[in-house]
Amino acid sequence: MRYELYYWPEIQGRGEFVRLALEEAGARYVDVARHPGGENAMIALMNGRRVARPPFAPPFLKAGRRVIAQTASILLYLGPRHGLVPPGEAGRLWVHQLQLTLADLVAEAHDTHHPISGSLYYEDQRREAKRRSASFVDERIPKFLGYFEDLLARSGATYLAGRSVSYADLSLFQVMAGLRYAFPKAMARHARSQRRVAALHDRVAARPRIAAYLASPRRIAFNEQGIFRHYPALDR
Amino acid sequence: MRYELYYWPEIQGRGEFVRLALEEAGARYVDVARHPGGENAMIALMNGRRVARPPFAPPFLKAGRRVIAQTASILLYLGPRHGLVPPGEAGRLWVHQLQLTLADLVAEAHDTHHPISGSLYYEDQRREAKRRSASFVDERIPKFLGYFEDLLARSGATYLAGRSVSYADLSLFQVMAGLRYAFPKAMARHARSQRRVAALHDRVAARPRIAAYLASPRRIAFNEQGIFRHYPALDR
Repeated sequence: MRYELYYWPEIQGRGEFVRLALEEAGARYVDVARHPGGENAMIALMNGRRVARPPFAPPFLKAGRRVIAQTASILLYLGPRHGLVPPGEAGRLWVHQLQLTLADLVAEAHDTHHPISGSLYYEDQRREAKRRSASFVDERIPKFLGYFEDLLARSGATYLAGRSVSYADLSLFQVMAGLRYAFPKAMARHARSQRRVAALHDRVAARPRIAAYLASPRRIAFNEQGIFRHYPALDR
Repeated sequence: MRYELYYWPEIQGRGEFVRLALEEAGARYVDVARHPGGENAMIALMNGRRVARPPFAPPFLKAGRRVIAQTASILLYLGPRHGLVPPGEAGRLWVHQLQLTLADLVAEAHDTHHPISGSLYYEDQRREAKRRSASFVDERIPKFLGYFEDLLARSGATYLAGRSVSYADLSLFQVMAGLRYAFPKAMARHARSQRRVAALHDRVAARPRIAAYLASPRRIAFNEQGIFRHYPALDR
């Protein structure tokens, strides 16, 4: 089966967490909206009457006749099918719990540049963005990354759920990459207390399929349309 | 087995989505932090070294030796054990996807009164809260509730996943109750386009175990410490 991934074609965004899982799995997939006519097909699928259970928003994945939305839910589906979670319910739930914690961090990272409304430009909420970013950088980044650092210290394991990579590890890699892009000064300042998380980032980046993906044109570069945006005024 | 729920004792908050599921299931549980010494036990469990897989934040559920955190993950665990999801993977994923969409709405509802930082008082971010609430009330409430309204219109079913109540229905009930508490003017204005969602709210509220729960002292009243807060300045 060839999966169809539907997501905005010009950003990594939330779709990137799914792309990384598909790439690590070596799964066959089409990134539909990056092909001619694909973005319209995506919107038609969301708004049309053909799907009994329509997604609220991208990303969503078509797997045969099934349409699955919400990043964490897509990963919940893909995980056991592609060896991206430990066998058994306890491991599956643990990885999912970590993914949901990362999703909370991602939503907060987004709101640093859009604290008032997603339908306004950053330029229209600059002052509020600066205030929100200060709290995010000083309090939230250390709290979230400190949690993952502590998990790795407790378990002493290679990855968050043991010896094998899980989709939560791929997502933590992406979060680290995104935070370093958006907040280079802050991340340099926090680096000493995030050594294990940084090592995990490097370990994921060096995995053959991930390394090949990152070097390919399939990996969209970070930019100022996505979730992780580099606005120097917000870094500190 | 008797579950142990760990959550802040003075608010409904995210813990309420778990409470509603446990109540509808008729499950045996202790709301630990509402008992003497319970809040300290909760914090000790979170920060201590005894748990191999500690939660990032409440709510979390102890089920035997297992500790499960993240609201949606707890519901993912409880759902199939207590008949709160349809049988089969497709139905389970669908209900989870809806729950994650509701979780996004809940996070946005929280940020209406805390758009800058969770560690500042509302009073210190009033102006920003007013701006964020305007967008939430005018754009986000209709978008989210319109989505659920449309789902109910498409399927014509009693509940979101068919004839039987699921944990997503319980959560949608809670979201409706919360939004009506926090934004009575806005919700009255939107009421005509939310009739099916309102009917679902009433259907859930009338279920015998939920009705008994809502009338009991176990149900904490809405208040200005929780996620859904009534600040007249933010309603419109």
